[in-house]
Amino acid sequence: MFIHNKRLQYTVRVAQPNPGLANLLLEQFGGPQGELAAAMRYFTQAVGEDDPGRKDLLLDIATEELSHLEIIGSIIAMLNKGAKGDLAEATQSQADLYRAINGAGNDSHVTQVLFGGGPALVNSAGVPWTAAYVDTIGEPTADFRSNIAAEARAKIVYERLINVTDDPGIQEALGFLMTREVAHQKSFEKALYSIQPNFPSGKMPPIPEYADLYFKMSQGAEPELGPWNQGKGLELVLDPQPAVDGGSGGATVELPKDQIATLKALARRTMSDPDIDPVTGAELGQTPQKE
Amino acid sequence: MFIHNKRLQYTVRVAQPNPGLANLLLEQFGGPQGELAAAMRYFTQAVGEDDPGRKDLLLDIATEELSHLEIIGSIIAMLNKGAKGDLAEATQSQADLYRAINGAGNDSHVTQVLFGGGPALVNSAGVPWTAAYVDTIGEPTADFRSNIAAEARAKIVYERLINVTDDPGIQEALGFLMTREVAHQKSFEKALYSIQPNFPSGKMPPIPEYADLYFKMSQGAEPELGPWNQGKGLELVLDPQPAVDGGSGGATVELPKDQIATLKALARRTMSDPDIDPVTGAELGQTPQKE
Amino acid sequence: MFIHNKRLQYTVRVAQPNPGLANLLLEQFGGPQGELAAAMRYFTQAVGEDDPGRKDLLLDIATEELSHLEIIGSIIAMLNKGAKGDLAEATQSQADLYRAINGAGNDSHVTQVLFGGGPALVNSAGVPWTAAYVDTIGEPTADFRSNIAAEARAKIVYERLINVTDDPGIQEALGFLMTREVAHQKSFEKALYSIQPNFPSGKMPPIPEYADLYFKMSQGAEPELGPWNQGKGLELVLDPQPAVDGGSGGATVELPKDQIATLKALARRTMSDPDIDPVTGAELGQTPQKE
Amino acid sequence: MFIHNKRLQYTVRVAQPNPGLANLLLEQFGGPQGELAAAMRYFTQAVGEDDPGRKDLLLDIATEELSHLEIIGSIIAMLNKGAKGDLAEATQSQADLYRAINGAGNDSHVTQVLFGGGPALVNSAGVPWTAAYVDTIGEPTADFRSNIAAEARAKIVYERLINVTDDPGIQEALGFLMTREVAHQKSFEKALYSIQPNFPSGKMPPIPEYADLYFKMSQGAEPELGPWNQGKGLELVLDPQPAVDGGSGGATVELPKDQIATLKALARRTMSDPDIDPVTGAELGQTPQKE
Amino acid sequence: MFIHNKRLQYTVRVAQPNPGLANLLLEQFGGPQGELAAAMRYFTQAVGEDDPGRKDLLLDIATEELSHLEIIGSIIAMLNKGAKGDLAEATQSQADLYRAINGAGNDSHVTQVLFGGGPALVNSAGVPWTAAYVDTIGEPTADFRSNIAAEARAKIVYERLINVTDDPGIQEALGFLMTREVAHQKSFEKALYSIQPNFPSGKMPPIPEYADLYFKMSQGAEPELGPWNQGKGLELVLDPQPAVDGGSGGATVELPKDQIATLKALARRTMSDPDIDPVTGAELGQTPQKE
Amino acid sequence: MFIHNKRLQYTVRVAQPNPGLANLLLEQFGGPQGELAAAMRYFTQAVGEDDPGRKDLLLDIATEELSHLEIIGSIIAMLNKGAKGDLAEATQSQADLYRAINGAGNDSHVTQVLFGGGPALVNSAGVPWTAAYVDTIGEPTADFRSNIAAEARAKIVYERLINVTDDPGIQEALGFLMTREVAHQKSFEKALYSIQPNFPSGKMPPIPEYADLYFKMSQGAEPELGPWNQGKGLELVLDPQPAVDGGSGGATVELPKDQIATLKALARRTMSDPDIDPVTGAELGQTPQKE
Repeated sequence: MFIHNKRLQYTVRVAQPNPGLANLLLEQFGGPQGELAAAMRYFTQAVGEDDPGRKDLLLDIATEELSHLEIIGSIIAMLNKGAKGDLAEATQSQADLYRAINGAGNDSHVTQVLFGGGPALVNSAGVPWTAAYVDTIGEPTADFRSNIAAEARAKIVYERLINVTDDPGIQEALGFLMTREVAHQKSFEKALYSIQPNFPSGKMPPIPEYADLYFKMSQGAEPELGPWNQGKGLELVLDPQPAVDGGSGGATVELPKDQIATLKALARRTMSDPDIDPVTGAELGQTPQKE
Repeated sequence: MFIHNKRLQYTVRVAQPNPGLANLLLEQFGGPQGELAAAMRYFTQAVGEDDPGRKDLLLDIATEELSHLEIIGSIIAMLNKGAKGDLAEATQSQADLYRAINGAGNDSHVTQVLFGGGPALVNSAGVPWTAAYVDTIGEPTADFRSNIAAEARAKIVYERLINVTDDPGIQEALGFLMTREVAHQKSFEKALYSIQPNFPSGKMPPIPEYADLYFKMSQGAEPELGPWNQGKGLELVLDPQPAVDGGSGGATVELPKDQIATLKALARRTMSDPDIDPVTGAELGQTPQKE
Repeated sequence: MFIHNKRLQYTVRVAQPNPGLANLLLEQFGGPQGELAAAMRYFTQAVGEDDPGRKDLLLDIATEELSHLEIIGSIIAMLNKGAKGDLAEATQSQADLYRAINGAGNDSHVTQVLFGGGPALVNSAGVPWTAAYVDTIGEPTADFRSNIAAEARAKIVYERLINVTDDPGIQEALGFLMTREVAHQKSFEKALYSIQPNFPSGKMPPIPEYADLYFKMSQGAEPELGPWNQGKGLELVLDPQPAVDGGSGGATVELPKDQIATLKALARRTMSDPDIDPVTGAELGQTPQKE
Repeated sequence: MFIHNKRLQYTVRVAQPNPGLANLLLEQFGGPQGELAAAMRYFTQAVGEDDPGRKDLLLDIATEELSHLEIIGSIIAMLNKGAKGDLAEATQSQADLYRAINGAGNDSHVTQVLFGGGPALVNSAGVPWTAAYVDTIGEPTADFRSNIAAEARAKIVYERLINVTDDPGIQEALGFLMTREVAHQKSFEKALYSIQPNFPSGKMPPIPEYADLYFKMSQGAEPELGPWNQGKGLELVLDPQPAVDGGSGGATVELPKDQIATLKALARRTMSDPDIDPVTGAELGQTPQKE
Repeated sequence: MFIHNKRLQYTVRVAQPNPGLANLLLEQFGGPQGELAAAMRYFTQAVGEDDPGRKDLLLDIATEELSHLEIIGSIIAMLNKGAKGDLAEATQSQADLYRAINGAGNDSHVTQVLFGGGPALVNSAGVPWTAAYVDTIGEPTADFRSNIAAEARAKIVYERLINVTDDPGIQEALGFLMTREVAHQKSFEKALYSIQPNFPSGKMPPIPEYADLYFKMSQGAEPELGPWNQGKGLELVLDPQPAVDGGSGGATVELPKDQIATLKALARRTMSDPDIDPVTGAELGQTPQKE
Repeated sequence: MFIHNKRLQYTVRVAQPNPGLANLLLEQFGGPQGELAAAMRYFTQAVGEDDPGRKDLLLDIATEELSHLEIIGSIIAMLNKGAKGDLAEATQSQADLYRAINGAGNDSHVTQVLFGGGPALVNSAGVPWTAAYVDTIGEPTADFRSNIAAEARAKIVYERLINVTDDPGIQEALGFLMTREVAHQKSFEKALYSIQPNFPSGKMPPIPEYADLYFKMSQGAEPELGPWNQGKGLELVLDPQPAVDGGSGGATVELPKDQIATLKALARRTMSDPDIDPVTGAELGQTPQKE
């Protein structure tokens, strides 16, 4: 069960309204690297998790991310507060109001103000939050890796946002939020390492003959050499070929006779070359064969 | 520039048609952990990348993932081939056709067959692929972590799919695809480690006083102790409080006088308690103050 | 700031696993009338709200809805727990496993199990949750009406779900959740009535000559008479006509001369009848006139 | 069956082209509170409705909303007409054209003009219309409440749009559209009241012991008292506790023995604390018990 | 302005309820090739169209498609009518009700019934309709080609649906709808041909040296020869090479000095090979040159 | 299998950075008429195609479109390169940086830069690419028509983009891409004509009595006459009526007795006029009859 405390986890002090900046900050309210995405990623993992330790960890951080969602939302609400009132009360001539809200070359925030000025669950381009951002799959060694990556991405987006505002109160609050991503990343890394072995994820072993190959699929220049394509555990294949299994490289299915007949009937009507067997790509009458 | 070779990277041999299984395999064609998502994740990183080594790596793997997309799509096409023809030619009574296509309790594939039987860019529930699955942010230490996680997730989904089919040709091909995810994960890990330091991502340092704290936000039981909440680099805060900055925990903005007046006018019309300052939450006349 | 208590608001006791039912219950986890939609509707309103009383109300109910999200998610996790393990451990032959998970004619849950068995933020058809479900617009008399409607819809969906399960533990928990929607609806109605006047929403008065008309746009039978189209406050217009303003019913814009010339050039190239003025729909040379 | 009359329901007279304003007006063409959403909300209810009176009402208003969609779309087309021709004919140097279209700090409309200048079914931020906006659930007392709320929201958005334009022709047309929302809201309210009783929606009664409680989930300050949390029909619970049912607040499922064994096998591989029963969260060997 | 006639354009006679079939028919109510998509494609083109003849054509067909939407929706409502009542009234034991609604192996329709039984604006897999299906771009020779294709696709989907039902009343109504797609396709083709020339679309001529080439990008087998890659108007290039313009095939931008310095600083921190110029991919100090 | 060549198909030479223009060009990277949509349209058709000639054609063009995706993405990366570095390195005061990136009245690109500066799979308004753009249905005469239309649309969007930039290197590259759309359109037209007959698509003949009618659904003015509504193959119906089949124009279903009783029970609770049969819309007791 959740309980809410009316005081924010970090105090929000905004120097002056700025709907354009509010709009940018939506990236961390309703954007893909934002706080709702983080909270929901960890919350869905927690609910499906059986291990008490991991469940505890996931609920701790999910709850903190909800508290961060409240902080970033409160900053946005403060930045939009004046414009929201101006629009509702129509304080000025319409042309002035349009200009005032439209500000200095930043229009998505007009949409936001039009939408009520409170924080909407959209990113900075106005795209609604979608659960497609949440990449939980219910396997802890994969999910912890997803969480580590998510925290690293969120850290970068906060850094970029801090770089475009000089409001010290906002900088402080964003700095706090950015810092917490770093702390969470540490926790998730330690949780991943506490499961041994954790690579590869899951139970099924890779097929040995393909597990160490690095296929040089991008050609046309000297290959860049690096630890990622040669050396320990990886073997560089400079000229990768199709059908690594030694087969034909084709795709076949063994169909019942009546379905073959049906496909031939279909071919007669629509095929550009009706002498070819539509089932196998071979000439009519030729049987598909196991390579 | 891309060039295509008509032969698949791995030969596809399907034992018999099975639209229900085709439908499940869509998860790796047009689903969030599928091959298009992988190809597009690495391709967008490659196009924006300046470093020749990393760009090379990303193009190699993006190209291989496109080749995997072709393999998984070809399996789906083989599994649907019979049903597609049956529906187009109306080979049976309508009731039989409905039953034949509807098969053994699996209906999304009816949608797929209705849609033409070829592989559609949807997941196994029929949801269209969206670029919201692609989490590229253009910072290599974050993006490589995202790639590592993506490969781990894809490995698991292939493992689950292998567990629900006994067609040896499909098992082999899926096993190949699963194995390549493991190989790619290794490459991305080595690429990440080749950047030093790689933690935290980006340039801005975390704020020291908050960087090591673990807030025990989920209460009501003895805390589970683990490396993720105590020990080296992390300090466990058992009873986390609001306003860690020592302030009020409120949210304030300093508004120009005319906007304050506008908000009061708005309040008079809609507020349930019009004696409260809508700007600060304080009683009317009280000035918001820096804590 | 949010705090979590490990104990659920209502105890979850599931009699036996049932992935098909789990799939249906997703409707209230990640569906449009579900608990995340409710929590986010009230939370976004709360963050943008200035009035202390309304903010308090919205935070109370948003927090309870998050607690409900946890309950419904926990039921789903319990219902999927067995299938999740079976798939991860491949306990049976693949064909048996496919059948066992696929169950009695219900395939979206196969997707769910494939996805890890934990509750995903999707509806019962597998569609990811989207913030497009959240209809907050930042005006309290409109938003409270939205909230009242949302609670009524959620009540109905819970009722339908209770009607398709005979597991007493699930019935009890769903009954609790359904009941709470009724209680919340009462609170929102009282909150709406506490703002006087609350109709029409906003500040701008309707135009008197059009405010009471009911246009009988659907014809071809005797009109059904009811309080909604005649009687107090509404006047029935049986044969509604275009251009109620008395004008031409056309659409015009006054363009600068150079843009008119440009449009004529465009017309010469693509118009099927190039003697007509593309700007006004009138014959070339005719000036658009104010009606 | 629908029939169209070429004359608009309200004459559109636009004083001069303005792609930036066109872009804002898209909010009511393809946005969540716009005319397509309204038309489709009532149309889908009408098609599923059995009661002749309600069906009549819903078809009347759905048809009028389609007519409003045509009005708002025509205004947008007029506002974009010049820019569309300029872009197609390349009347100016490219740099001038870019500036001319890009106008005064408003860029989403560049996208719109790029897209052809006609009204696209997107909101003012360019997000495509989605049926996720339509909240029909096929129960009249819930659906009428949804309709009442939808009309109230649309009224507010029109009011905001009127506040940012000084074109009298557009103000008049938007005023008409805004007024009609008020009239429709009245009709839906009267239709709701004509069903008695209409609260709570549906057939199943709420559970009495939870139906009147107001849980004070947001803490940390004196509670704001209001009719929404105390007084007639509601009882204020100041310190809400988990497990209101008197149980453990846990989540349990009774699994068959073989699935318990499977989960233990899974736990041995991935659990951080393998001595805990993954099924119940209790120590291994401990049986889950009914509270 | 639209007017509605209560009688359908084609009478709907359904032999018996069948929620599974209702679910499939949703493909043409809220699916990509369905009637709403058709109506909205032509309606948006009509609103943006200046030519009276084309506008007339587009409004005629848009209005008919809305009338078709009503027909297909009414069929769906009839097919679901029994199940909707059963669920609302809970006529049977819950287990029986679950089975009765869940029917013969078709689960998305459970979602639909859960959703109220009326036609929802989703496709047969439950995916909400999106304006992303509408491909209007505001240029008539392109839009008419889009319309021709859309009618052809819709014809095929109706054909497939007719093939899976033996209800004569539904077959008749679907046959009418299918036939009308054919008639509309004819009208759009004639309208396209009435614009001369109509190829290529738009005003800007193609670059002659690239306009007739067919690049054989898919290799590894004898090329299939056909009118599409050789003969009149097309020249087959068997071994296509990069950089057809004769340049380097690279990508360069001329940056101001300070931005080059910034990128070098960034490189020093994150590049795996910091001796390479991140701007040009060349060794540091080497100037990017015009080829 | 795909192979990549590091050299682009067309050399990219950008004169100077311009994030605003980069943002517009996203329309052809991740927009509905863009190169990913094209590549995926042809690729999914190819994978499901049985005819060797058509499969060859589709793979050739799909592969070239992927190569175009790389070109347009590389232009975008070049245009954003400076701003990306400036933001990562925080080279200026925050206010300057905000202004510099925000540029001349174009804000969606701020989102793009915030997102890392590389090309994201979104359109120029920031909307993520969705497979809903791909209209493949697996029937060649319909799909080729879709492809012809798609190429025509893409040609127009390139033309518009060329009209808003004066950078000669970008104009050249976009001119190449535009030209290739024209060439592809020719190939698809020839491929369509090589299938005879190709109209109507599919196998089922239209119903003769409805196949040639043109219903004049939009009234209120003299009808515009054209080849699309009269003359060869089309018969103009000036005053179209409902129920063209000669029936009642109603919708009926024959329900089992128990379901009729259930619906009456439901009616008693919610109907506004309970004397009407909810099943047929007729007065209670009246039997629905075949017309």
